[in-house]
Order: sequence, then C-alpha cells, then structure tokens
Amino acid sequence: MGLQQPLLDNISETKAGKMNLISDVLGIKVGHKTIQTERLKTGVTVIVPPVDNIFAHKLPAAVQVINGFGKSTGLVQVEELGTLETPIVLTNTLSVGVGYNYLVKKALVENPEIGLSTGTVNPLVMECNDGAVNNIRDLGVSEEDIAAAFDNASAEFAEGCVGGGTGMCCYDLKGGIGSASRQIEIDGQTFTLGVLVMSNYGYVQDLNIYNQPVGQKIKELDEYQRRDEDGSIISIIATDIPFNSRQLKRIAKRSSVGITRTGSFIGNDSGEITLAFSTANQIDHEPKKQLTTQLAISDDQMDRYFRMTVATEEESVLSSLVHAQTTKDRKGEYRLSLADALKKVQENGIDPAISKLQEQLGL
Amino acid sequence: MGLQQPLLDNISETKAGKMNLISDVLGIKVGHKTIQTERLKTGVTVIVPPVDNIFAHKLPAAVQVINGFGKSTGLVQVEELGTLETPIVLTNTLSVGVGYNYLVKKALVENPEIGLSTGTVNPLVMECNDGAVNNIRDLGVSEEDIAAAFDNASAEFAEGCVGGGTGMCCYDLKGGIGSASRQIEIDGQTFTLGVLVMSNYGYVQDLNIYNQPVGQKIKELDEYQRRDEDGSIISIIATDIPFNSRQLKRIAKRSSVGITRTGSFIGNDSGEITLAFSTANQIDHEPKKQLTTQLAISDDQMDRYFRMTVATEEESVLSSLVHAQTTKDRKGEYRLSLADALKKVQENGIDPAISKLQEQLGL
Amino acid sequence: MGLQQPLLDNISETKAGKMNLISDVLGIKVGHKTIQTERLKTGVTVIVPPVDNIFAHKLPAAVQVINGFGKSTGLVQVEELGTLETPIVLTNTLSVGVGYNYLVKKALVENPEIGLSTGTVNPLVMECNDGAVNNIRDLGVSEEDIAAAFDNASAEFAEGCVGGGTGMCCYDLKGGIGSASRQIEIDGQTFTLGVLVMSNYGYVQDLNIYNQPVGQKIKELDEYQRRDEDGSIISIIATDIPFNSRQLKRIAKRSSVGITRTGSFIGNDSGEITLAFSTANQIDHEPKKQLTTQLAISDDQMDRYFRMTVATEEESVLSSLVHAQTTKDRKGEYRLSLADALKKVQENGIDPAISKLQEQLGL
Amino acid sequence: MGLQQPLLDNISETKAGKMNLISDVLGIKVGHKTIQTERLKTGVTVIVPPVDNIFAHKLPAAVQVINGFGKSTGLVQVEELGTLETPIVLTNTLSVGVGYNYLVKKALVENPEIGLSTGTVNPLVMECNDGAVNNIRDLGVSEEDIAAAFDNASAEFAEGCVGGGTGMCCYDLKGGIGSASRQIEIDGQTFTLGVLVMSNYGYVQDLNIYNQPVGQKIKELDEYQRRDEDGSIISIIATDIPFNSRQLKRIAKRSSVGITRTGSFIGNDSGEITLAFSTANQIDHEPKKQLTTQLAISDDQMDRYFRMTVATEEESVLSSLVHAQTTKDRKGEYRLSLADALKKVQENGIDPAISKLQEQLGL
Repeated sequence: MGLQQPLLDNISETKAGKMNLISDVLGIKVGHKTIQTERLKTGVTVIVPPVDNIFAHKLPAAVQVINGFGKSTGLVQVEELGTLETPIVLTNTLSVGVGYNYLVKKALVENPEIGLSTGTVNPLVMECNDGAVNNIRDLGVSEEDIAAAFDNASAEFAEGCVGGGTGMCCYDLKGGIGSASRQIEIDGQTFTLGVLVMSNYGYVQDLNIYNQPVGQKIKELDEYQRRDEDGSIISIIATDIPFNSRQLKRIAKRSSVGITRTGSFIGNDSGEITLAFSTANQIDHEPKKQLTTQLAISDDQMDRYFRMTVATEEESVLSSLVHAQTTKDRKGEYRLSLADALKKVQENGIDPAISKLQEQLGL
Repeated sequence: MGLQQPLLDNISETKAGKMNLISDVLGIKVGHKTIQTERLKTGVTVIVPPVDNIFAHKLPAAVQVINGFGKSTGLVQVEELGTLETPIVLTNTLSVGVGYNYLVKKALVENPEIGLSTGTVNPLVMECNDGAVNNIRDLGVSEEDIAAAFDNASAEFAEGCVGGGTGMCCYDLKGGIGSASRQIEIDGQTFTLGVLVMSNYGYVQDLNIYNQPVGQKIKELDEYQRRDEDGSIISIIATDIPFNSRQLKRIAKRSSVGITRTGSFIGNDSGEITLAFSTANQIDHEPKKQLTTQLAISDDQMDRYFRMTVATEEESVLSSLVHAQTTKDRKGEYRLSLADALKKVQENGIDPAISKLQEQLGL
Repeated sequence: MGLQQPLLDNISETKAGKMNLISDVLGIKVGHKTIQTERLKTGVTVIVPPVDNIFAHKLPAAVQVINGFGKSTGLVQVEELGTLETPIVLTNTLSVGVGYNYLVKKALVENPEIGLSTGTVNPLVMECNDGAVNNIRDLGVSEEDIAAAFDNASAEFAEGCVGGGTGMCCYDLKGGIGSASRQIEIDGQTFTLGVLVMSNYGYVQDLNIYNQPVGQKIKELDEYQRRDEDGSIISIIATDIPFNSRQLKRIAKRSSVGITRTGSFIGNDSGEITLAFSTANQIDHEPKKQLTTQLAISDDQMDRYFRMTVATEEESVLSSLVHAQTTKDRKGEYRLSLADALKKVQENGIDPAISKLQEQLGL
Repeated sequence: MGLQQPLLDNISETKAGKMNLISDVLGIKVGHKTIQTERLKTGVTVIVPPVDNIFAHKLPAAVQVINGFGKSTGLVQVEELGTLETPIVLTNTLSVGVGYNYLVKKALVENPEIGLSTGTVNPLVMECNDGAVNNIRDLGVSEEDIAAAFDNASAEFAEGCVGGGTGMCCYDLKGGIGSASRQIEIDGQTFTLGVLVMSNYGYVQDLNIYNQPVGQKIKELDEYQRRDEDGSIISIIATDIPFNSRQLKRIAKRSSVGITRTGSFIGNDSGEITLAFSTANQIDHEPKKQLTTQLAISDDQMDRYFRMTVATEEESVLSSLVHAQTTKDRKGEYRLSLADALKKVQENGIDPAISKLQEQLGL
C-alpha cells in the first residue's frame, strides 16, 4: 500500500494518490507470483496497462537506459516506435526467455492475426539478477508462474519480497518490489503518476535516507562485511498525463535522480533501466484514418512533472526496502530487511535520528 | 561458398577471401539447423566466434540499429559495455525466447561460476519474421534445434534457404542466409572482414542489382501482385582488424549502405540491425591486471574499411538471393528464387542486360 | 526551379510540387547571398520557416546525424526539446560562429524579453567545408552577408553555385544548393514535403545517376586524378504533414538513403546531418494552457512518407549537380559541372546511355 | 585551490591531488578573463590540455548530454570521432559564436595546413546563461577577452566569480567556477582525475550539503522569494587514466550523480553537459602508421573510477559555491554567496548543524 507517510519528498509538493501505488493510475493492475522453496526465492511481477488488448491499442512509451548492464527485451522497438504493445513482465535475469515465450503465446491467443495477416509482437520483459539470494542457476521460473502472476493481477498488490522482487537485494539489504504515486493539478484537472520498481542495486555503505547516512552504520553490523554483488533496478512509470514518447523519455530519465537520491552512484554492474508509458492516448494497430488529433501537454512546466517523478521514484525505492523482510539467502546467510537492520543498529545504543527515521518510515 | 564472381562491388577494390564467407575471418564458425515440414519452414543459424569460452574472454563489439522494428536481445548491454559474451543465434521472431533460454543454459554449463561467484550472461539472439512462408504461430523451433545448429558449426557452411534463413523472403523473392568476405592490406599486413546476413526485407519493385532495376520486371510476373509484408535484415560483421567498439559501431553503420544499394529504403517495418565484432583483442572477464595495452587502428583510413564493409554487405545480400531456392509458402504459393524469377522474366523475350546479370551471378 | 523532369524516382509514386522546391511547403522562404571574388567563392543560404516569430512559436523538429564529422550548432537542443526556434543558416565551416552571432542578434531584436524575462535562444547554423574551391582561411563571410541572405529570402530561389553552395563540390564535380518537393494524398488531403541540400560530398568514381555509373567515366577525364577531400552534406526537410519530433527523426534518417542512392557510402570525413521540421503544429514559447490537442498522423503508412523522402532527397542532390556551373577553384583548376563533365565524356565517342541521361536531366 | 577540507565525499575513498584542482592532471592549464563593469558581469574560462598542438595530436574524449537544453558547439563531432582537437572555451550563451570564431582563428594560426591541405577544425565552446546577473544582451565578450583568458592560463587558477563563472548563479546563490581532483592507485601506479565546473543550475530550496538541507533555510531569507530562472552546468573532466572514448562517456555520465547529490533534479531548462578527456593516449591527425598499440584499462573496476568521478564532481560544485562572492545582479539585487547566506541564516539563531557545515566548508 505504498508508504503510509509519504513525507520524505521535499523535492515535490505533490501528494500521494489514494493507495500510493502505481495502480492509482486508473486501470493499471499488478500481479505477483512468488516462488519460495528451499532452493528458490524468485518470482514474477506483471504490470498490466488499462487496455483490453494492448497489441491492438498500443500506448505511447519510452525507455531510458541509465546504465545498460541489463538483458531486458523489447527496448529497441520501444525506442524506435514509441509504443508499448504487451504487458510488462519483471523477473530474474535468466528467466527472461521464459517471459518472452509467455508473452508471445499470450499475444498469439489474443490476436489470431499475428503471424498471419499482421506482423509479430514485441514482448517487454525486464529483469534483475537475484542470484545472491536465489539459486538462479536452477532456472526456477516457468511459463505457468507467469500465467499465475497475470491471474493475480489487481489494483491492490503487495510490495517487498513478492513476485519478481522475492530474491532481490537493495543496498545489500533485502529489496524487492516498491511502488508509489503522486497527483498533480494541470489546468484544473487532476492527473496521476505512479512508479513501480524492482530494486536490486547499491552498496550498503552508500544508503542514505532523508539525509541520514544510515548505510554507514548498518555496514558496521556483523552481517556486513563488504559484498560486491551485481545490482540493477527496473523502474516502470505510468501516468495519465498525455505525454508523447519524447516527453516520456525525459520523464524516464529523471528516475535516475530518484534512484541516486538514496545514495548510489549508477554502478558499473547495475542495470538501471526505466520504462515510462502514458494511458492518455491510444495508438491503434490498424487505424481507420491516418490523420487524427491527440491530447498533448506543453513542455513549459516540465519541472513540476520532473519533481513529481523524482519523488515517486525515490519513495518507490524506499517502499521496496520498507516492505521487504529479512530473508535467508542461498548460502544460508540472512539478508536483513531495513527494519531489522535499523533495529540492530539501535541495539548498540539508541540514535535519536534513526529513531525518528524509523517512525517516519513506519518501522 | 559466397558468390563465385565477386565482381559487383566497384565501391571497393578489395578482393574476396578464400571462401568468400564470414568464416574467412580466422576461427569463425557457422552452423545451421534447417526445419522443413509440411507446416514449418524455419530454423536456426549460429555464428561462433573464435574464442574457446567467450564469456570468459569477451570480444569488442558494437550494434547499429538502422531501424528498430525488431526484437533482438542483448543489444542494450553491447551498446553499454562494447563486448560480445555469447555466440550469436539467428532465428525467427517468435523463437527469440527459445534462443535466449538455450544460450543461458549453454553459458551455465560452460561457466559454473555464473550466478554463484560472478554475474549473469547477456545472450545475443537476433531475428526476422519468417511468417510469410513459415507457420510462425506454430513456434516450431526448440532448444534441441539450436543445439543441433551448434553441433553443425563449421568454417564451411551453406547459404540460401538454410538455418534461420529457411523461411525468409527478400525483395519478395526467396531470401535467407548470405555471406561474403573481403581482404585488405594495412601497414603491410593482410586483414579480413566478413559479413553474414539473414535477409528478409524489401519490396520486389525496388530490387536493383548492379544497376539493373530487375525488380520492376519481376513485379510484372503473375506471382507478383503487390505484397506488403513485414521485413527485416540482420547483419553480422566479423573482422580481425583491431577496431575498438566505437569504430565497430561506425563500421556497422555502413552496412545500411550495402543494404540500400540493392534498392530498398529502410522500410518502417524492417528491423535492420547490425552487430559487428573484432577478434583482434580479447577482454578478460576476470583480468589479472587493470592496465594493459591493446592493438589499435587509426581512423585515418576509415574510408577504405567503410568501402570494404559496404561491398561485403551488399554481396552478402545478393548471395542470400543467389543461393535461395523457390519455396512453397504456408499458403501454398511459390516464393520464387532470384534464379527462377529471372528465368521467368526471360520467357517473355530475352533481355540482354538480364542475360549478362544471370551470367555475372552464376544463375 | 527544381529538376524539370522529376522522373527519376521510381522509389516513390509521388509527384513534384508546383516549383519542385522546398518552398512548395506553404510559407517557406529561401534566401541566398553569393560571394564571388578573386579569392572567395562562398556564401550563405537561409531557410525561413513560415512563422512570424519562430522563437515565440516554435515548430516540431528533429535531427539525424548520419555521420557526425560536422560542426553545426543547435543540434543538441533540437534533439532534447524537439523544436526549431530560429531560421536555419547554411554556410562554410569556419563561418559558423558568424552565423551564430547573427542569429543571436536577430533573435534579440525580435524578442526584447530574451535575456531579461525569458531565457536564451538556440541558433541553428549548419555547414560544409568549401575549402577546395574557396579560400576558406580568409573567413570571407560577414554578418552583413547573412543579413543580405535574409533580405533576399523568397519562395522562388536559385539552385547550384549560389549562397552557401557557391564553393561546394559534390562527387568531385561542382555541387551546391539543390531542392525538390513531392506531394502526397493522406485521407483525401494533399500534403507537401520539400528538401533543400547543400551538397559537398562524395568521390567522383562513385557517382551513379539513374543506374548509370557515370562517375567511372568522368573519372577517366584528365581533370580527375583522384582527389581525396573533405566532404559533407546538409539536408533540410520541411513538410506540412503533422509529424511529431519522433516521426521527423525517422523521416530525417531516410535522407541517408537518398544521399547514398547516387553512389556514395557515408565517408569518414563526410558530415552528413539532416534537420527535419513540420509546419503543422506550433509550440508556443509561453503557452496559455498546458493541455492542448495537436494534429497527429499514424505511423501506419510511414513507408509512403519514407519513399517520398528518399525521392525528394535524391532529386535534391541531383538538382544541386544539374544547376551547378563549372567553377575555377582556389588553385586555378576547374571544377566541372555535371553538364560539362558529361559533355567531355561524350567527346571521346557518344554513349547512348549518357545521351539519354543528359536528356532526362535537361543537360 | 579547491576545498581545503575535501572531507565530504564518503562516496569515494580517494584523496584530493596536491592543489585539489583539475590541473593536478599533469599539464592541464586553466585561464580566466573576468569582465566586471557597471552592466557586465561575465567572462571567459579556458581549459588547455597538455598537448602542444592539440589539432595535430588529439586526445580521446566523450560527451554526455545529461539534459540538452544547451547551445555548446563541437559535441556532435566528439560523439562521432571520440576526440578533442581544440582547447575548451567556457562563456555565456550568447557569446558562443565569439568563442567559435576565436578558436577557428587560433587553429588557423597554429595549423597553416587547415583549409589547404587538410580539413577544418572542431571548436569546443560550452556555455551557461548568466543573464540573471549579467546584461547578457550587451554581448559583452570579445575575441580579445578570449585571447586574454588563454594568456592567463596556468596550473594555478582562481575559483568562484571568475572567468566564465563571473555572472553565474547556482541554487539561486552565487555560483561560478569550481574545481577539484582525486588520486587513485591502479596496479601500483597513481592516477589523477580532475573536474572543473561552471555552475549555474538549481533552485535554492533544493540545496543540500552533506545531508544538511540548507536550501530550505536559505529560502526563508528575505532575498529568496522564489526565482524561476534558466540554469545549466558545464562539467569538464580530465584524467591521465587511459580510458577510451566509450569509457570516458560512462565516466562523464556519472557527473550527473555528483550534480544531483547537492539536491537538484536535472531541471527542464538546465543544460547539463559534460565533456571528459584523457591525456594518456594521443591520436595523431596524420599518423605515420595505421596500426598501433594503445594504453588501455579494463572496465573491471569501473566502480572505483565512478565513485571518484562522483566525488570530484560534487566537490567541484561545492567549491564553486564556496569560492563565490555576493554579487549585485543587473537589477541591483544581491545574489548571496553561500558564505553570506549561511551567515544570514545563523543571524536568526545559531543552528549547530550549520555551524559545523560552515566549519567543514571553511566558511
């Protein structure tokens, strides 16, 4: 349900939507399939846009590759055509092919003309490497798991160690799925922008929350000998503001600010990729007319939308940390949740600043 | 074996290598698995770089997206890191996930540390849509088929309707796999550049070979009512010239000239994507030292290398047409080979220019 | 006046506009200042969009850098914001600063608020190196010359060795300014796309016109010992089709096909840069409302617009050659016009194919 | 002389070089020409690489356009060729043409073959809009001013309101020129990376220094009714680490983290552009041989270099604020220095956190 106290973003004056989730953007649904066994801690998260058949009625979209150490599929075509034509699947790196296969089959079922009277489909599968926690070599995600995530899709959804986020680590703490939203008035109308992240990036010593460099303190815990692991963060931005794909790319770029505001520096191994889409205009696969009119928005007040994006992205990252739970990794070691890490830090003597932070974060 | 008479490229004074194939670049192997059944005409082609374990010893690489209507995987990371770390799989669009899965498993077998003590792997799978000929909705490619293509990999390989090219169409004629090479002297040493294409692009009326607009004449045949199909062309460029990834990107960009020299215009639906790599420097996954020296080459004479690239690319496209055979498509109609199409054109009266072209092409 | 017989473009079925010039796009004006002295053969060409104050009412625009060996200003901001906010100045490479200064002063006069209540302005100056013919080191272009070009701006304008094209060479022949246009029906309405080039690229042996490799023959003339000079081509595309900046970028990219269809290969030293803009939607510098509607066009029939672009670009290049005149270069040698070069080739015996070409080109 | 206490960068463990300036990279010189009159507060800063004739002996370079609302020249060619071939001029936006003209003339003098036996030159002029303080419409910078900046170039140089930074504002405080450096051990050798910024970006309320959101407090001062001005920041990164241009681009990208770590969000109007170059390999304009070897460095430990870059960039921004002085703007209002702003904040009651910050910053 997002963070209960979205107070942290002095970068923007916007307020959270009703649920403080990406699904505050009307019609968006999110589904998880969480896989937890002795060896597996992985899963799938799907983001379903509010269009009955998105292949037939595409949405304006854009991608920003902040750091391209990543294996997501579908980005090249989004960059060229500026449209999203499948739902989005988030999973672990080695399961991208499974996600691709599933989205192909789903599109074939829903669009009998694909491969016959029309072309193919561009599956959007995005990933992080959960191999620190999960036995990723087991290739533990099946197409059935992805189907289950779609079956579970709903406007209400859990955050933390769920779905694709089950095995993810962020700032060497337990990470996962996080989401947030903000609302804004434009010409007297209310619009919403939401973010969902799968967080798996960062080194513990860099973690900084609301000007508290708590990572430095967490690093002193016994659990935190330095770890030098692959990271990544996938961000999905949805909005009903009628941005075109050029504007969406600029919005997506500002996610990097939200990500680094919690302390990181765009690491070499961190695949930081953001996809943004707007639900305001639909683009028909087979348009009846070539010439149309589209809803549009000026670049004139982009700073307001950029601030909102940064705030929502930053809170999504924090929400992934806040909702995550301490998890035993594949080596049997515990990956602490932020909640547990802060508690442990306080065991060595109460730090009032951290107490305040715990309160702000509801931990 | 390439074209027997590589005479067509007045754009460059370079000569073909021994086989006039991409495998004239020392150590490169190519393997096909051709799938031909009542419903299926598809397959897999793999390009195997001359490195025992390319994940451990990567090669400098670059990608040029000429037109991004395509679903290839792995391009984002090549763009960021400038390295190739798997062999390359070419197949049909809807089988990209299968290729991804296969390359993941292959890398896991060869590198027991992936997912344990090191990160993941970036599978390079590239595709065209063979749905005009093949029942692509049948998803006819399996991981076993990809394994078979690897088993078949050799310096000698067939062109035309083989492997990934089995069901491809080019200029509405039968297309497929084509390859060529050129050799050049640099500072007294001989270097080789080779290209392999999977050709699936273009409209028949645009085809132009060595200044003969033969497409206009072929279009008058009964078989050629206008077809408005998805196209694409994947090009792989390999060389032993010590280009770095920036230079390889510039080389890859010139493939677009070779492609359009046969008459096309970079169509909207044509996913034209080129990957180039050099075998001259290896980049260790776990380097012993940070500082090294690398072989390098000046930009000063790039025009020579660009001309060679254009010639090799153009001839690879022509070679794919020359080696292809007339094929019955999934609707039971015949997709003519260039050879048969030219013969049919000559049935209505001999055109000496076309006779000369037939001779030049060995048709 | 464009080519009188725009017959050469079998790539597109569109017909030329009334003048066969970029100014067939309603309201576009072009002005030249030609500088011809003993030492100088250079000048300025300006393209004036049909907006009273383009800083206040910007137009959607995009840039495609085909090969970035070039010094044009203003491209970075066009890429980011997708808008054109000054007229466009074409001149020689070393005079770009003069062009920048002039456009700054012009914008300051027209917009008293620049630098006070609003920001600065993004001058668009594009260039080729005319140093083969012109004593470019003399820095022979002044701000007065640019002012004169604006004073001369009109819907009717000359081509060939005029304005910025005065000293340019193309395929080692005399090049310069060329222009063409095409018209197309979309949903029952007629739209126009026009191109203006400043051509300064290519090697003589590569020249190919309508499938006649005439460059090979011209190269045998005494005048054509091989020359290895810097080249470049600047292309301006204007249209009243309501493309957005993403679509304009795709249109601009196809100019590379028109350029290479006459035989070149995107040389290393050839700064090939294309700017495209649409006159259909204006973007106010100070919008009254944030939310609007804009005219839009589907990507569905992009192939038709791509073909039209290729044809118009190709003919613009040819028109620059056809309208140019033999010119004495700074060393006292003659740079032949295409007309004179073809005449000289015919002196050694009439080639019927070249005779036909002369007729087609009106030479 | 940089910040005296480079303690703030817990993001990196590297130490400042001897002067804590970009000129700690051996051979780099920086020169200023400061223009201060009743109406003018502007100037020029030049960065001179350690090469006698950089046109003849170019350096590997790369550009990262963080936000392209900017008018710098030369970036397109750096992106294509990966080389720097002139010194770098920093000045105000409307004086870019003057800078271009100066660099052209300087190159013509130093290279008599330009425009005769070789091509032209790619002038690198970068800019911010100092129109909030300076009467930028007066076009107050002349070519003589740029010459003077070159005459003044030295390894030792001032920071703050000097040269191109004279009229710049950063976070609505007085900004300008700032610089810093860091040193790192690689394979037992010591290398240096230095940054110089011209800071002109950000809104006061966002300023955050070492986890103190001091901007919120400064904003309450009478001077800080909200201002909504154009911003920008130009960053120059120099190093003797043998990065190639691909790696330099990745380094340049991390400057965005340093910039945003002080609180900003990459504003719409903020032209944030970073140029990075390495002094380790020279690239001859006329190489004697095509094949060479070059010093190279693995990507394997990029995180160390990224952290160093972020730290140096962040400290350069802070150093620009720390060295600036309260300045009367063109309207007669005072633009406070950070020092004076913090003093004023403390007048309303001492805040111990700010006292500590003042001490850390030496204010």
